[in-house]
Amino acid sequence: MKHYLAIKDLPSIKATVSEAIELKKNPLQYQHLGKNKTIGLLFFNNSLRTRLSTQKAALNLGMEPIVMNFGAEGWQLEFEDGRIMDQGKSEHVKEAAQVISQYCDVIAIRAFAGLEDKQKDEAEQVLSAFVKHASVPILNMESSVGHPLQALADAITIEEHKPSKEKLKVVLSWAPHPRALPHAVGNSFAEMALAHEDDFEFVITHPKGYELDPKKTKGAILEYDQKRAFEGADIIYTKNWSSYKDYGKVACKDSSWTVDKEKMAVTNDAKFMHCLPVRRNVVVADEVIDSENSIVIAQANNRTYSAQIVLKKILDALS
Amino acid sequence: MKHYLAIKDLPSIKATVSEAIELKKNPLQYQHLGKNKTIGLLFFNNSLRTRLSTQKAALNLGMEPIVMNFGAEGWQLEFEDGRIMDQGKSEHVKEAAQVISQYCDVIAIRAFAGLEDKQKDEAEQVLSAFVKHASVPILNMESSVGHPLQALADAITIEEHKPSKEKLKVVLSWAPHPRALPHAVGNSFAEMALAHEDDFEFVITHPKGYELDPKKTKGAILEYDQKRAFEGADIIYTKNWSSYKDYGKVACKDSSWTVDKEKMAVTNDAKFMHCLPVRRNVVVADEVIDSENSIVIAQANNRTYSAQIVLKKILDALS
Amino acid sequence: MKHYLAIKDLPSIKATVSEAIELKKNPLQYQHLGKNKTIGLLFFNNSLRTRLSTQKAALNLGMEPIVMNFGAEGWQLEFEDGRIMDQGKSEHVKEAAQVISQYCDVIAIRAFAGLEDKQKDEAEQVLSAFVKHASVPILNMESSVGHPLQALADAITIEEHKPSKEKLKVVLSWAPHPRALPHAVGNSFAEMALAHEDDFEFVITHPKGYELDPKKTKGAILEYDQKRAFEGADIIYTKNWSSYKDYGKVACKDSSWTVDKEKMAVTNDAKFMHCLPVRRNVVVADEVIDSENSIVIAQANNRTYSAQIVLKKILDALS
Repeated sequence: MKHYLAIKDLPSIKATVSEAIELKKNPLQYQHLGKNKTIGLLFFNNSLRTRLSTQKAALNLGMEPIVMNFGAEGWQLEFEDGRIMDQGKSEHVKEAAQVISQYCDVIAIRAFAGLEDKQKDEAEQVLSAFVKHASVPILNMESSVGHPLQALADAITIEEHKPSKEKLKVVLSWAPHPRALPHAVGNSFAEMALAHEDDFEFVITHPKGYELDPKKTKGAILEYDQKRAFEGADIIYTKNWSSYKDYGKVACKDSSWTVDKEKMAVTNDAKFMHCLPVRRNVVVADEVIDSENSIVIAQANNRTYSAQIVLKKILDALS
Repeated sequence: MKHYLAIKDLPSIKATVSEAIELKKNPLQYQHLGKNKTIGLLFFNNSLRTRLSTQKAALNLGMEPIVMNFGAEGWQLEFEDGRIMDQGKSEHVKEAAQVISQYCDVIAIRAFAGLEDKQKDEAEQVLSAFVKHASVPILNMESSVGHPLQALADAITIEEHKPSKEKLKVVLSWAPHPRALPHAVGNSFAEMALAHEDDFEFVITHPKGYELDPKKTKGAILEYDQKRAFEGADIIYTKNWSSYKDYGKVACKDSSWTVDKEKMAVTNDAKFMHCLPVRRNVVVADEVIDSENSIVIAQANNRTYSAQIVLKKILDALS
Repeated sequence: MKHYLAIKDLPSIKATVSEAIELKKNPLQYQHLGKNKTIGLLFFNNSLRTRLSTQKAALNLGMEPIVMNFGAEGWQLEFEDGRIMDQGKSEHVKEAAQVISQYCDVIAIRAFAGLEDKQKDEAEQVLSAFVKHASVPILNMESSVGHPLQALADAITIEEHKPSKEKLKVVLSWAPHPRALPHAVGNSFAEMALAHEDDFEFVITHPKGYELDPKKTKGAILEYDQKRAFEGADIIYTKNWSSYKDYGKVACKDSSWTVDKEKMAVTNDAKFMHCLPVRRNVVVADEVIDSENSIVIAQANNRTYSAQIVLKKILDALS
């Protein structure tokens, strides 16, 4: 595996989940692999879990992480070709990506959707530019349209906490949020869930108008009635996103979509998941996230092993 | 020792001072203790000495420090329970503390007093929340009401520089400052000094109205006349703080409280101490801080050994 | 070598270039030298290449880099002696430099010219204060008047890419830029080039009024006609700087000074160099920077080896 840009870059999600669970038992076993290798963690947006877990994963593999916040520590990059760069942007990504490739053996990038220009976001402007111009592997730490390290951590967490049952009912539920959020987590979760077609019955529920990009959700069951979606569910995965159709708009803040005890009661004793950070009592009621069925902390813990198994594959391919 | 939240968490201050002085002779002797362990340094306020010395201490013990500035790199945390989180705060400390505990073996926190809500500051909102929700040891890098790493460094420095004498006269002197400052350093120094009741005659001097929290200073001699307080003193420890009674207010900027040569002349050739950063010619005259009696640089150096001996005790208890 | 403040601090530029080229073949060969040593990278201005390459160089030598951004993470320092510090500056460089020297074995500093007060900039206020008050070696990561790590990387790059020829024609060409930029890169390049008097015919070209500090350029050939300067050149080194005479002003943004294919055509198949970041189609046309003659990426790569050979010399002198 050269880059890890989307969950589909994994040769096999299921095999990778097993490898991650195995790795978790002895996280330092591959510490020789990253010796004298650096990973540059480039942040165009803020981060808590992603930064710390990716740093931890890199350290577990013996790598040296170098964190760079482009906003506060660097300068704005130009991504368009042919521009006369006489405005606010000091450097073209062509140079930046090639140069950083000479100091870092792997480049990890976080660059959220701007939610203003759908076409630009879908083109994954930042991530694609680094893939094009860098000469080292690129690791996606959440891009405009995907968060594949999160989706892999989600898959690991489901595998660890699922009831024994032939086919799980996995529900991705939209929830309200005060601000306009990107679609990356929802997209990658859907892609991951849809890759488990033999194992998951995958349902997405949200208010009308909140349909995700249909290219990402083909094969999912769409159910506009949240309660009906929750019936018999084994996994409730909650996440807000802004409108995709009316791009980046917040059309609905309807608090009746908040996940509460009453809704969880119709599930099959479902586990509650969320990628965090989560707005309590907006996205999910305290009574649910604080219940025994909530596995959000274990899910966050798996971010380390998700990043580590991916980095291990990248390092394997480098050597 | 699990957490280090206040100087009283040390089993014995005097024994710890001796251990730190011993450690200083060979700071790398415990480098195996922290191998493959990370310490998360979480800053809710800026830092120079504390950050660098704690990083250095962690490195000396073989640990990997991970620095995170919550202001610039993360987001605002919610500390109140039961809130509907639809405003500016993106994550509850409940999740943040539990999650970070999974990536870091020790969490060090700096969170100053806001100086607006006395009750909230006294409750140590940030530090207490991490203690409550984290599953790993917490190290106080200056909280609302205490700066115990500084106080331990102060004790080490006094031990190294004291005249041989049965009982030292140790004076904590308020000094003017243009801005409202927290009480943390004064509080912790008082607690440390009062724990040396057999060795120190401990005097606090400040203008009327600048009394520190009486719970922290019980047993100290209060002297409103700065010059009388300085008479025969062996240690002059200077620090500004805002009013505690009229909470967070700056009632006095009286430059007659600046520590100068004339005042130092009535001491017993006292050593001059300050935790730094210090406003020259406001808190202390150049002639004093630049004199041979000033031990502020040696005092700052001991921040490394203060942090290191505390971290060593935490690591000992972990293994 | 104690400090590295200017290119002339090197015992021999030519010998150092050879050592760097040798080091590059096996960059980890001196990893024992920096073991258990820290380098504090202090940034008073933002950085990309310099930060990453210096961190990489330090890691290659086994050192632990500690990055500190004074703007975002610290506070403002006072540099004037005798000040009553009752305004915005919280700490005097006297304390800061002495204190940091106790936590870091080497201090690296980036502090650009403010371009408002020529005298202050020429006095290298920040760098000089650290040299004066710190007790450890100081490494210049670009100061008001010089960028000697860049100039050394430039020398290495020229050595690696020069045509075989008795005497090279090396041209430093001013180019337009929307903002006022410091003279540091131009100055250090000139100093480096002038130290190669047996090997380089060194020409500087710029519009009238853009003369660099004559103390830095004594011995260089000055040519106001850019095209004539380019004739037969082997190396074109492009860089913008603001006026030195009319200090810090941008008197000219004349796009006829942009380096393009037509100008490069009159050279002796010259290599194109720039320290980066570069404003494409303002400083240099895409057609030139994207051509095979452009060696800007290789030049940036040499920043690692420039920093590493300098740090090696500093470490050698420490032990």
